[in-house]
Amino acid sequence: MSSAHPVLVEVLRGDTVESFHRGSIAVVDAHGRVVQAWGDIDRPVFPRSAVKLIQALPLVTSGAADAFGLSEAQLALACASHGGEPEHVATAAAMLAQAGLDEAALECGSHWPSYAEATHALARQGGTPGALHNNCSGKHAGFVCLGCLLARQQGHDPRDFVHGYVQPGHPVMREVSAALQAVTGVDLNTAPQGTDGCSIPTFGLPLRALATGFARLGTGQGLSTDHAAAARRLRQAIARHPFMVAGSGRFDTRVMAHFGERVCCKVGAEGVFCAALPEAGLGIALKMDDGNNARAAEVVLARLLQRGAARDAADHAVLAPLAGPTLLNWNGRAVGSLRAVFDPV
Amino acid sequence: MSSAHPVLVEVLRGDTVESFHRGSIAVVDAHGRVVQAWGDIDRPVFPRSAVKLIQALPLVTSGAADAFGLSEAQLALACASHGGEPEHVATAAAMLAQAGLDEAALECGSHWPSYAEATHALARQGGTPGALHNNCSGKHAGFVCLGCLLARQQGHDPRDFVHGYVQPGHPVMREVSAALQAVTGVDLNTAPQGTDGCSIPTFGLPLRALATGFARLGTGQGLSTDHAAAARRLRQAIARHPFMVAGSGRFDTRVMAHFGERVCCKVGAEGVFCAALPEAGLGIALKMDDGNNARAAEVVLARLLQRGAARDAADHAVLAPLAGPTLLNWNGRAVGSLRAVFDPV
Repeated sequence: MSSAHPVLVEVLRGDTVESFHRGSIAVVDAHGRVVQAWGDIDRPVFPRSAVKLIQALPLVTSGAADAFGLSEAQLALACASHGGEPEHVATAAAMLAQAGLDEAALECGSHWPSYAEATHALARQGGTPGALHNNCSGKHAGFVCLGCLLARQQGHDPRDFVHGYVQPGHPVMREVSAALQAVTGVDLNTAPQGTDGCSIPTFGLPLRALATGFARLGTGQGLSTDHAAAARRLRQAIARHPFMVAGSGRFDTRVMAHFGERVCCKVGAEGVFCAALPEAGLGIALKMDDGNNARAAEVVLARLLQRGAARDAADHAVLAPLAGPTLLNWNGRAVGSLRAVFDPV
Repeated sequence: MSSAHPVLVEVLRGDTVESFHRGSIAVVDAHGRVVQAWGDIDRPVFPRSAVKLIQALPLVTSGAADAFGLSEAQLALACASHGGEPEHVATAAAMLAQAGLDEAALECGSHWPSYAEATHALARQGGTPGALHNNCSGKHAGFVCLGCLLARQQGHDPRDFVHGYVQPGHPVMREVSAALQAVTGVDLNTAPQGTDGCSIPTFGLPLRALATGFARLGTGQGLSTDHAAAARRLRQAIARHPFMVAGSGRFDTRVMAHFGERVCCKVGAEGVFCAALPEAGLGIALKMDDGNNARAAEVVLARLLQRGAARDAADHAVLAPLAGPTLLNWNGRAVGSLRAVFDPV
């Protein structure tokens, strides 16, 4: 890297800057025209979970969502990094059941619910986490549904066919990667490749291309008719079921519960955020250098939404605590705050 | 800040750099001579929990540790950011009982144990966390013991006297701040001040001064006779009870369980680490810009210890996985790694 990315967020303790976060941001339209940018937007970035909506497109375009009667809430969960709350777990289980399979088909691995209260409740009941509690279980249930439809179409046993669906060369993952390539316009054969936390491949893509892709998802421009229709359906599903895409207290849920279809945003691991602003025809992609999500990437996106999406006092009331959160200590006493230190137009 | 701090740690997914961490480091002797430095070591940094050993000095020098018969394990816990494991909780409770008080005297606030398995076990038993589970409960139990001795000496009721001990102007906290000033040589009246997670004051000190202070703790040079003896006693206590200062699987515990008195290190919140290397007569203080502890600050310190403390293959075997950890995904599959990208002499 030739020069340092700009400082985007400062962490204050009292009135002293204790820590700070650097990163890069692309704000782009569906034609790839850069409206605003900070830092290097051409360096490949693993988008991780920020592109789950794109990864869910084949679930819709294939006909699998309809073939297995997936509800809007289930489609939202297919795009989710959820908190492992009981409703998330039950919804993922139902998706699998509708396709004739169960939790055993999931290849995402297990972890305790990311929502702390759900973890405490699970332990209190003497439980231990399974694959359904994995924050990616809805996405993986969607992959399994897609695999079951492909199996049906090709005359295979669904359980046998879906086995290994996380591998890059599996028919399911080939569909998923093809959608990512179509939406972002990046040749994935030449992109850096890694393995995600849930074992599927992740590809390094420039923020410029990711933001362009999200502008396309929000407007339909530059997408095939099928992809445009599927993107619209998934965006609507998330807007109507924002709890499903994240969960209690979470940024994405709080933003979309208020903004509805006006903002479609999705966090990814390691400080990535992508968003579509359909009204403005813009896409946003950002990455914090240090991989910090919970405070840095969220503050940056909230700041961008204050300028790019907020219209009235109610909008600002939702965004203000997200763009400038107060930090509390273990006695609930305010000891610091976060603030964005860049200036979007 | 005039220029960006150097990148000290890279996070790789596959063979691609996904994230990276910048920071500053001071390696200094007891006379304040800088042996090596990266970034700005004169900017004030809140050391947070990294100076707990210094904050525990008055517990020893006042005579409170002996008056209440504190064991070596209890002295180690007074310097700890512990995981809230049952042995930590029981030891903190015993410290308070020996001073004639109980958990109600603690003013650190409550949180679930930072060691995940301890949280699951507590929830499984139907429990909820109290102040004893707070990672700072040993330090606060030490403050309470100090307060009880001062109360006894001054003829006050101990419970009344210790009330409000976290406030900057309380006699207990004045003793604690005086020790910090004496060891680091910084006038705290002119230092930035904030409130720590456990509600006591924290002061912004240059890494240069923190590293000098740790060189003094490790050698006794530049300290009063009382402070030098107390520092030696606390370092020995930690070296003999490394579990008490952190806990299962934790960096500080793993390092000191092997190195004993050859390394005395302590993590602090927001990416701070301080260490004394008594044999080399050096102190280390470092701060990651972004506040990342668990991966960034640890990798940096492990790299410094590889050059500054490791003598043989056994030493290197302990440090190698800490300086270059493998990152596993939810299926236990290696998907990445961390690496230090600076070169200590």
